[in-house]
Amino acid sequence: MPKPLLLETFPNPYPGRDYEIVMTCPEFTALCPVGGIESDARELEALEGGAPDFGTITITYVPNRHCVELKSLKLYLWSFRNDGIFYERAVNTILDDLAKVIKARRISVVGDFNIRGGIKSVITASAKAKRR
Amino acid sequence: MPKPLLLETFPNPYPGRDYEIVMTCPEFTALCPVGGIESDARELEALEGGAPDFGTITITYVPNRHCVELKSLKLYLWSFRNDGIFYERAVNTILDDLAKVIKARRISVVGDFNIRGGIKSVITASAKAKRR
Amino acid sequence: MPKPLLLETFPNPYPGRDYEIVMTCPEFTALCPVGGIESDARELEALEGGAPDFGTITITYVPNRHCVELKSLKLYLWSFRNDGIFYERAVNTILDDLAKVIKARRISVVGDFNIRGGIKSVITASAKAKRR
Amino acid sequence: MPKPLLLETFPNPYPGRDYEIVMTCPEFTALCPVGGIESDARELEALEGGAPDFGTITITYVPNRHCVELKSLKLYLWSFRNDGIFYERAVNTILDDLAKVIKARRISVVGDFNIRGGIKSVITASAKAKRR
Amino acid sequence: MPKPLLLETFPNPYPGRDYEIVMTCPEFTALCPVGGIESDARELEALEGGAPDFGTITITYVPNRHCVELKSLKLYLWSFRNDGIFYERAVNTILDDLAKVIKARRISVVGDFNIRGGIKSVITASAKAKRR
Amino acid sequence: MPKPLLLETFPNPYPGRDYEIVMTCPEFTALCPVGGIESDARELEALEGGAPDFGTITITYVPNRHCVELKSLKLYLWSFRNDGIFYERAVNTILDDLAKVIKARRISVVGDFNIRGGIKSVITASAKAKRR
Amino acid sequence: MPKPLLLETFPNPYPGRDYEIVMTCPEFTALCPVGGIESDARELEALEGGAPDFGTITITYVPNRHCVELKSLKLYLWSFRNDGIFYERAVNTILDDLAKVIKARRISVVGDFNIRGGIKSVITASAKAKRR
Amino acid sequence: MPKPLLLETFPNPYPGRDYEIVMTCPEFTALCPVGGIESDARELEALEGGAPDFGTITITYVPNRHCVELKSLKLYLWSFRNDGIFYERAVNTILDDLAKVIKARRISVVGDFNIRGGIKSVITASAKAKRR
Amino acid sequence: MPKPLLLETFPNPYPGRDYEIVMTCPEFTALCPVGGIESDARELEALEGGAPDFGTITITYVPNRHCVELKSLKLYLWSFRNDGIFYERAVNTILDDLAKVIKARRISVVGDFNIRGGIKSVITASAKAKRR
Amino acid sequence: MPKPLLLETFPNPYPGRDYEIVMTCPEFTALCPVGGIESDARELEALEGGAPDFGTITITYVPNRHCVELKSLKLYLWSFRNDGIFYERAVNTILDDLAKVIKARRISVVGDFNIRGGIKSVITASAKAKRR
Repeated sequence: MPKPLLLETFPNPYPGRDYEIVMTCPEFTALCPVGGIESDARELEALEGGAPDFGTITITYVPNRHCVELKSLKLYLWSFRNDGIFYERAVNTILDDLAKVIKARRISVVGDFNIRGGIKSVITASAKAKRR
Repeated sequence: MPKPLLLETFPNPYPGRDYEIVMTCPEFTALCPVGGIESDARELEALEGGAPDFGTITITYVPNRHCVELKSLKLYLWSFRNDGIFYERAVNTILDDLAKVIKARRISVVGDFNIRGGIKSVITASAKAKRR
Repeated sequence: MPKPLLLETFPNPYPGRDYEIVMTCPEFTALCPVGGIESDARELEALEGGAPDFGTITITYVPNRHCVELKSLKLYLWSFRNDGIFYERAVNTILDDLAKVIKARRISVVGDFNIRGGIKSVITASAKAKRR
Repeated sequence: MPKPLLLETFPNPYPGRDYEIVMTCPEFTALCPVGGIESDARELEALEGGAPDFGTITITYVPNRHCVELKSLKLYLWSFRNDGIFYERAVNTILDDLAKVIKARRISVVGDFNIRGGIKSVITASAKAKRR
Repeated sequence: MPKPLLLETFPNPYPGRDYEIVMTCPEFTALCPVGGIESDARELEALEGGAPDFGTITITYVPNRHCVELKSLKLYLWSFRNDGIFYERAVNTILDDLAKVIKARRISVVGDFNIRGGIKSVITASAKAKRR
Repeated sequence: MPKPLLLETFPNPYPGRDYEIVMTCPEFTALCPVGGIESDARELEALEGGAPDFGTITITYVPNRHCVELKSLKLYLWSFRNDGIFYERAVNTILDDLAKVIKARRISVVGDFNIRGGIKSVITASAKAKRR
Repeated sequence: MPKPLLLETFPNPYPGRDYEIVMTCPEFTALCPVGGIESDARELEALEGGAPDFGTITITYVPNRHCVELKSLKLYLWSFRNDGIFYERAVNTILDDLAKVIKARRISVVGDFNIRGGIKSVITASAKAKRR
Repeated sequence: MPKPLLLETFPNPYPGRDYEIVMTCPEFTALCPVGGIESDARELEALEGGAPDFGTITITYVPNRHCVELKSLKLYLWSFRNDGIFYERAVNTILDDLAKVIKARRISVVGDFNIRGGIKSVITASAKAKRR
Repeated sequence: MPKPLLLETFPNPYPGRDYEIVMTCPEFTALCPVGGIESDARELEALEGGAPDFGTITITYVPNRHCVELKSLKLYLWSFRNDGIFYERAVNTILDDLAKVIKARRISVVGDFNIRGGIKSVITASAKAKRR
Repeated sequence: MPKPLLLETFPNPYPGRDYEIVMTCPEFTALCPVGGIESDARELEALEGGAPDFGTITITYVPNRHCVELKSLKLYLWSFRNDGIFYERAVNTILDDLAKVIKARRISVVGDFNIRGGIKSVITASAKAKRR
């Protein structure tokens, strides 16, 4: 299960300037929920869960008072590894978890997932802080 | 014949947020209608239909209450396989069929078709929901 | 000589929607007019005309009542093959000939020509229908 | 069903010289046999057959007395379109059918198939004429 | 733990000919054994195991009497997902497990692993059947 | 019609050393002979000849006493422009014409032709001088 | 020394339409002025001038009454070959010289210079005609 | 420690025109501060400092009265080599140091850093002169 | 100074089989020795040493009884960071240091260094164990 | 005129081992001799010499007792800048000049020249030391 408590922050060293941070993780993996596009009985028996999904997660944000610590982000993304989760939910969950912890001025999350059933999916979600 | 009844949906898990979903299918194939650019008598006899076309279909939408289920989309796109259909009609038909089923806030369909007669064609159509 | 009479049309199947058609022809060839950048006496004698030019023609348009038929476009572009014509004139001629035949809502023509004398040229021209 | 009778030949214009001909068809498609890696009940119902496979077929040969006519090869490869056939069998069948018709000095067939179940497959088979 | 029992075979349809099959799986993942290059206390606590590794496994073989069934290969490769295993051992294990099951005339396995600690690793191992 | 008389030579400045010259012409064009893969009645009427073919010709040779003069090679290749000729014949003709004029120690000609009917063709022929 | 007198023009064949011409010259070379980033005593002695610079010049303009003749542009760009000139001055000089001769509706010049001292430089300048 | 005193300028040769200069340095390296993402006891002992980081720094500015001298920029960027500095601080420091020295009309700095812990980071900061 | 004592090994898990390990480190950096191609007085003053060099080191070996431990290799390559060393010496030193520690059946080292003075250098050295 | 006296050497630090050095110079330029493929009267007047040629020179050698010093090689290659020389002669001259100075165990020179008259040329020459 995704563990948002793994996320840690450090104080933004340049809070007086709007600048942008992009972090790209090309090694995201989770499991397709049971019943998803490529699961069948033989697969479930083999892995005791759904089929694995792979993708690249890209996070873009303008920090306010805090930046996300890089290593804690890595551990947080690892925590999806053995979870069954749909693409749409994974991207929006990462957005919500990060937004809550770093309260960025603006933030977006892109999940670019490998082909499944001959179809490639890219999900993009974004949010803005209500006030600065 | 394209079978829009194959399309299935699931409830958008984040209806309160405008986010974008892009689905790319690089394995779209249909038949060129009889009389199209590369058909002749010998071809018709061989295949009992027009010459095959190949292309990539890319669907981009912002979901409202429903998302299209990935596997049902795959089956729907397969249903063009043995149909004679012009490029312009294929792209606009996919747009209309999806728009009717998922009522997305906005949606576009791009058909990027392989070279025929030394000419490559890309067709782009889009639609917006009238009100949210 | 370019033969605009070769261009044929078919009725736009979706006239109620603004959608875009891009047609790319990477096999355009014409002759450089006599006296152009790479012609000299020996070349003229060999070919009985100017030196050949090569390029890619890309046509982008939003159809109104008619679409250009793909095969007729191919034949029209072939009709430049043994004509001496400058780049600027070729691109604007294709634009004018197509605009007259299909009366598109908007249309642009890009000619991307191979290096001559160490210099690559790209010419872009566009037009809009005066009223819809 | 593959139709080897579609294959036609023309006399090799340079039979006195060993030279090589490579023909690449990036638009090969067939059906996965029922029960193959991505078929399930919903898919079978939709297409009345197995799931479609896509790939590129490359044929390399040194002609003896005959060359294969290009258009007949195209029609022959189209004849796999609605056939259920495994990769290994498709490649070896094309090799056998061509070898029988053109009796090339040497010939090889490569089938480079799109990812299925997260795995890409490339099959290569070749044959030599027993005597020249 | 890798589960070689998941591997299934089918009879080689062309046992009389030496032909080559290449299968590439770009979605291989395993865990780095505890104490490996990027594990530390915080990582172990987060994942209850070592850090994840990612790579592409490419298997090339000339079948003898049996081919490996594609879906069973996928399930077998998935079975490394939550195992701590060094690169060298992973590649040699896959080679041994496959060699035992399909007794290929010749077989090689390449593991091309993502950068860890700024260094990329590629391991290649191969084997031949002792007699045909 | 190809005009081998256009080919001119200059004395090899280093006849005592075997060295290799590769000349690549990406702008080769000829006409498909009447009756070829993409000709039909409408095409013939438009162009008064077969459909145009495009390709890249690559010539590799080790000079003996003479090198081919670059500009004369260009003019010679232009002389195919309005000729109906099959791929196999074009490549072997260029090889024969050059071999006769420069008597290279060894020479090869590769014709890499654009896709026609969904199939790409590459023809390679070579020759060696009988004695040096 | 750059020789703007080499620049010649021809009348714009379509003065009634705003269209764009892009000319790219990937073979621009000049000398770094004496004392520039990579010159030292040994280099000056060798070349009797500064070290050579290399780059690509891209000119984009919308013609008014005149277009620049392609061959004269080539000769003009050659005239920088043995001149010592800084990047900033080269780009702005080309812009000024062209603007004076063709009086384009708008024009820009980009100089994309090769790495020197581990740093790559790209300079972009543009101008508009004051009135049309 | 970064040494801004190394930065030297020369007078902008075209102060009357807004034009843009982009300088890209693909060979930036610094040290990760002690305690950063990939340091551990063994690493510290080896290098007597944190682990090295690598990246590309891209500086884009519109000069006012002064341009930065290229060689002095190179030396300034070298001065980070043995400094422990976080990505965010490095990019903002370069921006501040340059802004103070050249007082550009506008300036931005992008730091594109190599993957660490499976995550790639790109930081972008920019500033404008308060008045011209 | 390079520190070969940093190199550590682990027992080859498959000593009975000849298999190949390739390790690529794209982040190698050292200093150019004083007096090298791009050093001058201003540079020496700035860095208190020669100018930095950058490159990619690729090590390929067939292990005998020992493999090199990946993290120790990283630390060893870091130990060149502040050393003045010529390309030829760096590559041969790495080869000698590794050959002494792992006594591989065969081993090669390639150093692919970034452009200096407009010239790119690649050095390749290899060694074989005298007896197995 | 090429100045072989500019070439300097330093002692091979590893004369006991056969290892390979590849040096690539992508910024080679010379002049086409008067009368070459793209010269005409207007060009000669402009440049007081033939048209400029551009290419990449790649030198590969196994050193014996001496290596070529990198900076002296750069100066030597610059010395072709204002010389009229044919491709074949340039490549063989560089080979001869280097072979005389460094007496490499084996050496080859490749000249990869930009397109002229629509044709790209690559010349490769090599030599071996007579005895070691």
